[in-house]
Amino acid sequence: MAMAAHADGDDDEYEEQEHLERPLSLAEQLAKDLAAGAKSFEGDAAVVEELILRRGLPIPYSYVDMLMHTPNAFGTGPACVVCHSNADPAKSYRGLDLSSCEGIRTGATEEPARALFVPGENPSKEILGRRLRNNRMPFGIGYQLATGSPSIDIVEDWIREGAVDDDHFRETVLPLFATEGAFGHDLPACTDCHMSNQEPPSFHELDLTSFQGIMLGADSVAKGVENATKVVIPGNPEASPIFQHLVENRMPPGISPLEDRDHPNTLILFEWVRQGAPCD
Amino acid sequence: MAMAAHADGDDDEYEEQEHLERPLSLAEQLAKDLAAGAKSFEGDAAVVEELILRRGLPIPYSYVDMLMHTPNAFGTGPACVVCHSNADPAKSYRGLDLSSCEGIRTGATEEPARALFVPGENPSKEILGRRLRNNRMPFGIGYQLATGSPSIDIVEDWIREGAVDDDHFRETVLPLFATEGAFGHDLPACTDCHMSNQEPPSFHELDLTSFQGIMLGADSVAKGVENATKVVIPGNPEASPIFQHLVENRMPPGISPLEDRDHPNTLILFEWVRQGAPCD
Amino acid sequence: MAMAAHADGDDDEYEEQEHLERPLSLAEQLAKDLAAGAKSFEGDAAVVEELILRRGLPIPYSYVDMLMHTPNAFGTGPACVVCHSNADPAKSYRGLDLSSCEGIRTGATEEPARALFVPGENPSKEILGRRLRNNRMPFGIGYQLATGSPSIDIVEDWIREGAVDDDHFRETVLPLFATEGAFGHDLPACTDCHMSNQEPPSFHELDLTSFQGIMLGADSVAKGVENATKVVIPGNPEASPIFQHLVENRMPPGISPLEDRDHPNTLILFEWVRQGAPCD
Repeated sequence: MAMAAHADGDDDEYEEQEHLERPLSLAEQLAKDLAAGAKSFEGDAAVVEELILRRGLPIPYSYVDMLMHTPNAFGTGPACVVCHSNADPAKSYRGLDLSSCEGIRTGATEEPARALFVPGENPSKEILGRRLRNNRMPFGIGYQLATGSPSIDIVEDWIREGAVDDDHFRETVLPLFATEGAFGHDLPACTDCHMSNQEPPSFHELDLTSFQGIMLGADSVAKGVENATKVVIPGNPEASPIFQHLVENRMPPGISPLEDRDHPNTLILFEWVRQGAPCD
Repeated sequence: MAMAAHADGDDDEYEEQEHLERPLSLAEQLAKDLAAGAKSFEGDAAVVEELILRRGLPIPYSYVDMLMHTPNAFGTGPACVVCHSNADPAKSYRGLDLSSCEGIRTGATEEPARALFVPGENPSKEILGRRLRNNRMPFGIGYQLATGSPSIDIVEDWIREGAVDDDHFRETVLPLFATEGAFGHDLPACTDCHMSNQEPPSFHELDLTSFQGIMLGADSVAKGVENATKVVIPGNPEASPIFQHLVENRMPPGISPLEDRDHPNTLILFEWVRQGAPCD
Repeated sequence: MAMAAHADGDDDEYEEQEHLERPLSLAEQLAKDLAAGAKSFEGDAAVVEELILRRGLPIPYSYVDMLMHTPNAFGTGPACVVCHSNADPAKSYRGLDLSSCEGIRTGATEEPARALFVPGENPSKEILGRRLRNNRMPFGIGYQLATGSPSIDIVEDWIREGAVDDDHFRETVLPLFATEGAFGHDLPACTDCHMSNQEPPSFHELDLTSFQGIMLGADSVAKGVENATKVVIPGNPEASPIFQHLVENRMPPGISPLEDRDHPNTLILFEWVRQGAPCD
């Protein structure tokens, strides 16, 4: 039989469990949920969501270690450790060592040194989350294209100087978002996909056609205007999603932007971080 | 050159080896078998069968450890350790820890505590074997459906009370096997696939249309009546395959019942168990 | 932002880096290459080539260890360690232990004991390289066919005795290369694919139709006659590619000869060897 609880052969077992002093075991919780009949979790992602994430199963570091060493763990591409296995920036990109738990928790040691996440917190907006989930823009741009183009520099400088709605913005910055090829030869204009705060047709309800649209941010309908995701943080390009999306490549390098951003292993890795990124 | 034996350049080498005091090396045994010309082992499963299982190659625990940590190791689905990595039943289903050799050998620690196998013996009928090879019935049922339905309880109780051919059996138990949907909405009746002791058309030569058929068991033609696999053990539903198949989900959760039950990694894991499940 | 160098927001950063005392970090080197605009590295193999091999990233042994334990790591087939995990030739083919770094560096311990490679040198022509990249000939022959046939013995003996262009060669050895089925039932003749020193149509510019062609070797046009790859080393069949290709099976056993010989993991493993095959 699948469930320990069931083995008791007691029809009232689920009600009785409510009165137990001890916490329910995972198997008992699952049996209870199944008996309640309200669950629907089919498919691989649903298995991970329902059996693991929803119940807060501790993710062992040994699993994380395997993920770091395995090709295609988070989508098609090389294993993380072949590029990031040493704290020396001359031996490993960004001095990032993903081959040890300490290295994962430390993050990039090359200046500017940066952690990948905050242990215990959701990493989806942190570097870890962005690198595994966010496609570099414009959609379809190759990781091999330089991230320091004049167009990108103009956006970066505008944000760093306060993201003001002035003549410079209207004449020089805003037109870049509407120009095909502005951020990469033959690539679409930003506004081809982000043209209003309605989705569809505008992805993420993001409007890059005006200063007001840009400052409103993404998902203002779904989340409400107050909770929309800001894409520009005046004075801080590094923290601004609009800039991050122009210069941060999704990992592993070469992955297709069409691959699922919510790979089950990505979700499991994030859960490990939320659990505090324990090393034992 | 492929074989050490061949390197001697001695046409009589195979005969001479018969007189050696030392045991043949694996390479010598293989060269001998190849020279005999009777082998035919093509395809992935055949490679595992011929090169590994047939020759009793020691399976290292390090390989077993990798299997436990790898998605899709025994068919499509999450890695074993993401659900089973702790002896605490509040942290890991059934208190089963597959992330360590000791944990694998201990099995489920939640009551009723149960080992997965007996080291040194074939695990195919033990919990390990059933969970990796046996599809939950009726065919196509989702793992997310509760295992404690009234219909299943009726079968369980009937077996526990002795599996007698009485009015209760004929009026209440036997009809369940012939009723579509009895063990899951829209799912086929047991007798749709198990209607006689002849295969084809009856899978596993199992006849669930009568008391005599049920007690005869499975594969009575292939193995002979005396060696048929009993599907009901009177008084012991937990040991009865007919009940096991109703309440035990094949692992990993969500795997298609159409996936090969004899995955090469399953066969290798079973061989490790037969070799005593060594931890070094 | 992707690159630390870019973070400085300094347009002259690349020129300035030339004057730095310290070596460039990998990220800086990459940013410099990207800025130079001459790179084109798309696709999985290109990622490995450009980001890893070209820049000499240290390959950690932990990645090699994972490769040895993973099915399909170098193409479809069982993990290396299921056949090679022990120094005892009665427990592991050729007494080869690929489950430890020391074992990998030691190679086959069964007589004739042989290392797989020379640490620090390119292993592509060594046993490691041949076994992972070279298809056994004739093309399509199964690994399960004996490597000690009379035809192979004739070639071996001819090479060992000096590879002379005499009556025996012309009457007995040379015709084997032109005879369908000579090295395996229903398999093509060698000269079906290797009939001149021009490719196309002759694979590897290898001509097995005459003594002169055989002694000229492979790739005499591409590399020049002086640098052509010798396929016969008179007196030494074990070192002669023509003999190696007849008796050495490509690993893993059962792999299709059509699978990519330059699997990214094969290239990474070779790089680890070139780096000295370090164990830490």
